[in-house]
Parts: sequence; structure tokens; C-alpha cells
Amino acid sequence: MNDTTVPETLAYTNGRLVLIDQTRLPGELVTLVCEDVEQTHDAIRRLVVRGAPAIGIAAAYGVCLAKPANRAGYLSAIERLATSRPTAVNLFWALDRMKAVVESTSSDDDLAGVLQAEAIAIHDQDRMMCRDIGRHGATLLRDCHAVLTHCNAGGLATSMWGTALAPIYHLHQSGHAIEVFADETRPLLQGARLTAWELSQAGVPVTVLTDSMAGSLLRTGKIDAVIVGADRIAANGDAANKIGTYPLAVLAKYHDVPFYVAAPSSTFDLSLANGDLIPIEQRARIEVSSPHGVCVVPDAANVINPAFDVTPADLITAIVTELGVVESPDTEKLARHLA
Amino acid sequence: MNDTTVPETLAYTNGRLVLIDQTRLPGELVTLVCEDVEQTHDAIRRLVVRGAPAIGIAAAYGVCLAKPANRAGYLSAIERLATSRPTAVNLFWALDRMKAVVESTSSDDDLAGVLQAEAIAIHDQDRMMCRDIGRHGATLLRDCHAVLTHCNAGGLATSMWGTALAPIYHLHQSGHAIEVFADETRPLLQGARLTAWELSQAGVPVTVLTDSMAGSLLRTGKIDAVIVGADRIAANGDAANKIGTYPLAVLAKYHDVPFYVAAPSSTFDLSLANGDLIPIEQRARIEVSSPHGVCVVPDAANVINPAFDVTPADLITAIVTELGVVESPDTEKLARHLA
Repeated sequence: MNDTTVPETLAYTNGRLVLIDQTRLPGELVTLVCEDVEQTHDAIRRLVVRGAPAIGIAAAYGVCLAKPANRAGYLSAIERLATSRPTAVNLFWALDRMKAVVESTSSDDDLAGVLQAEAIAIHDQDRMMCRDIGRHGATLLRDCHAVLTHCNAGGLATSMWGTALAPIYHLHQSGHAIEVFADETRPLLQGARLTAWELSQAGVPVTVLTDSMAGSLLRTGKIDAVIVGADRIAANGDAANKIGTYPLAVLAKYHDVPFYVAAPSSTFDLSLANGDLIPIEQRARIEVSSPHGVCVVPDAANVINPAFDVTPADLITAIVTELGVVESPDTEKLARHLA
Repeated sequence: MNDTTVPETLAYTNGRLVLIDQTRLPGELVTLVCEDVEQTHDAIRRLVVRGAPAIGIAAAYGVCLAKPANRAGYLSAIERLATSRPTAVNLFWALDRMKAVVESTSSDDDLAGVLQAEAIAIHDQDRMMCRDIGRHGATLLRDCHAVLTHCNAGGLATSMWGTALAPIYHLHQSGHAIEVFADETRPLLQGARLTAWELSQAGVPVTVLTDSMAGSLLRTGKIDAVIVGADRIAANGDAANKIGTYPLAVLAKYHDVPFYVAAPSSTFDLSLANGDLIPIEQRARIEVSSPHGVCVVPDAANVINPAFDVTPADLITAIVTELGVVESPDTEKLARHLA
């Protein structure tokens, strides 16, 4: 039995939202305190807090920080927070829950308290979700000793064990020998900075590679499975996740290695029939052209910087949610799973 | 007819080897002067000069810089220079030519002159090689408008147009509209820093992407072909090239996009039956863990840093050399091509 304590990504205390500033990891472990809606919006936009589930929880608490004069003020806070990141559906899912509370509470007087209770419920459910994904995912990884992941779908992306990393923490805790290979995940290096940091904090052996090394690593036969998170999943199982996920799925298929997606059921957007309909956030040139403030791309060259790509369901061996496992996902199976 | 002037990667004048310091691009265009064997060894090792053909030429001139007391001094200079980079076969090819000159020249007196003539011949042949690869490769790319490349197999990797970029310069010069998408190529970013720089200097439209974006870019159908260089090619056509080339070949195959390798015939190592026998240089942790001196990987995490990967011949649509084009390369076809 190993310890698997993970750091607390976000906490709400005394009417303040306290976030680990993930832009400063792994160099420094510092927290950022948000006291109003704008500070929360800014923290989400700047990726101080990131990962679809964590964004949802932060946004829910952000609504509580509004403390407006009236009901309409809460609704405009919700609208404002919804503009912080365009792809993560959990953001809209959490804000919709907060909105439903605003709309269904009859007396203005206890609205602040009811909203806070709802945000805490979202937070608590997230912890349960992590545990359940860990348990279900562990059945898929039970024969695995080396797993490859991309970006950070760990504790720092949620309130506890994360999604893609939850089965790994579950197995590690139960004494199963498992090691993780983490793509560094350019441009923002969440794999190197965050995944490697939280896994090593928890005592899980981790090796960082550049995204371009995953292909030859898979070719060696050393990797038993690939597991990643998702920012939005369409009704048919097509999954949007951090840029670089799709090529990993193609490479896994080519090398006959199972490719798993782990995400809470709140990640599903059943209004979208397939992944082509998922909007892809385009981020600033500077993230690619000037890592750490050093310009590495000549001004005359163009740059593209899509934050996400879409992995079609037919490349996904199974999707794991807090409700269980869906092998070879398709529209019908997923509808039954989520019903 | 467009201008396609490319900068002079290396020059030998007045007994000094003048190199563009490629570690400083694209920020600054500065040259480094080598006056002896150790300085040349260091420049190759530190990637001041890089790219298999350019390394070969630099090493040949490096031998001339030895100015030893006797014939044995030249042989030990050759031995020393051979240790600067382990994978690039052109290095050994050029040094073998220099060694043959040492061994076949009868009088010690004119050895310096004969060696300099041999180095200049290697340099001149490289320029001809670039032009010929450009001409042959252009027949493969004649219907292409957008081409994806990895690392830098351009003018900066050779003495003129390069290998993978030579057909692009050839087409651009003849007025054919062609644009290039360049993988940034972590860890050392030769695609962002060097390929984007030299193409934009020559007026070829270029767009930089992180290595992780190539998959979704290929999925859009926008890319007509992938073309890369090689550091060593085995007898059966398996090609070692910058880490990240192999996954690109798998992705090209998956998306039914042709995948071309362009390299001089000196890149072939017929003593190796296949690519599994090619030694792969492992480089320092710091290149992955501390880009631009900022540590992005926690100390507790491991790092891997293979400089190259091997693309099996069955993923290569054609190999282009200065001698022509070999489609669907295999041992027999390549033996005939090189004979």
C-alpha cells in the first residue's frame, strides 16, 4: 500500500478561492487567491487553473465570489465566466448548474448560501468522480506496467486524483508496480511541468519525453497502454483533448497498443453528434514562438496554435467515466452508459 | 522566377573555417571561426554546425586545420573528429576520404595541399548534390502546394539548398507556388529556428507548428506531401533521421500522404542490413528538461533524449538522392541505384 497524496489544486475558504498557480510549476509551489469574478476569469484564461473538471469547479466558486446586489448580477457573472475558455464543456456544465440554482431559488435572501452549497456539491462530486474513474480504469490497466500519457489529466486538472491518472494512483496505492511516460506536451509543457511533478510527489516513477519521441517509444514495445483525458466528448465518442492526443491515438493503433480516454460524464456534449462539431480554441502565437520569452520563430514565419485536436471514436479502445467502462465506444453504447 | 539565395552555412578562407553559429539563430546571424581541430570538434558537438552533409564538410576542413608535424598527426586529427557526432554517416564518409588521401599521398611535403583540395572537392560535390536532389525531388513534388517537413534538412544542413528543402527551392525558383509547414522539432527547435528562418530569407511562405500539431494538420487534407532528410540510411532503405520523423511517417501513411526522404548517396551505410543496426545518439537531459535555461521537469522525474529515430523503408514512398529517385525502396533497388 503506497501513499498517493496529491496536492490540493483548489480550495474555497472564507469566501476566497485559493488556487495552486500551475503556471509556476514545477519551479515554485505558490497559490493565487481570487476574490472576485474577474480574478477567477483571468486565472482560468491564463491557465493558473486548467484541466476541464478543475475549470468547472473554479468557475462555480467564481460565481459565489460575485456577491452582487441582485439575482441579475449572478447571471451576468455566469455569462462572464463562460467566456474564459471555449472548449472545456465542464465549464458550461458547472455554470449551467449554478444558473439553474439562480433560476429556481425563490427568495433573494438565501441565494448566496444555496449557490455556495451547489459549488461545494460540484467539488465533492468531482472527488467521488476521481475515485470512481480510478477504480473502473484500474480494471483496464491491471496487466500494465508502463503507461504513456499526454498533457495533464491528473490531480492538478481536478480536485483529487484526476481522470487519466486516477487509475494509475489507484494501482500505485494498492502496491501494483506501474510507471508513467509523460509527453512534455508543447507548447505549454503541462506533461513535463505538471504530470511529472504530481506523479513524482506521489512516488510514482515518471519519465518525461518530448512529444516527438512517443512514436519510437511505442515501437520498442515497452508501453502497455496509452491513457489520456478529454475536454469535450461528442455523442459518438469522438474526443477533443490537448493538441497531440490524436497523433498518439494513431500511433497506438499502428503499434497495437490500447488507447483509453478517461473523463467524467460531464465531459460529454450530447448536443454534438460527432467531433467535427467541437469548436477548437486557437491560442496566441507567442506560446509557440517564444517559449520562456525567447523568440525561436522568425517574425516572417506564420504560426498555428490550436489548443486541442479531436480523436475519432474508432481509434479509442475504451472510454472510462465515473459510471464505468465503455469499450469500442459509439453513439448507442454511450447513450445507454450515460442514461 | 524567384530568388532563392540561401546564406552560406560554412566557408574555408585563409586557413580558417567560418561557420554560421546555428545555435544563435533566428535571433542573431553571427559566425564562428575555427582555427584548429578542437574548435571544429566542439562546433560539431555543440551543433554550431549540424545536418549530416554540413558536418561532413566541416570535418573535412577540420582535418586541414590540423597542420601537424607529420602524417600520423593527420590520422589522429581524423580519429578525433570522428568522435564528434555518432549517428551522421556523412561524417565518417568525409573523414574516410581524407584518410585515403593521407594514406595514398607519397610525399609528406604536399600533403596539406592535397588534403585541402580534397576538402574543397567534398564541398563542391555537396553543392552539386543539392542541385541534383532539387531537380529530381521536384518531379515528385510537381503537383504539391503544401509540404510538411521536420527538423532542418535545408541550406543550413549543407553547403547550398539542402536535401529535403532542395526540391522546394527548385520549385520556388521556377515560379511554382509552394508553401512549407515546419515542425518546430523539439528539443532543439531546428525546424522553428533554422528551417523557418532560411525559407523566409528565400521568400518561401512557411508556417511553424509544434511537433504535436502535425497529426491534426495531416487530417485536414491540407498537406500534399511530407519530405525529410536523413542522417544514415541502411542497405534496405530504413532511414535514421531527427527524433520525430518516424511518427510523421506513420501519420503520413495513415492519412495516405506520400512520405519522401531526400539525402545524398553518402548517407547510405551499406554495411548495415537494416535500421535496427543504426546506433542512436542519446543526448543530454538538459536539452529536454531546461529549454532556454528554464527548468521545466522536476528533478525527481527521468528524461529520455534520443537524437534520432529510424523510419522503416516500408513507410517511405520514395528516397531521392543526387542520382535520382527510388520509389518503394528496398535492398535490391537501392543496390542498383547506388552502383
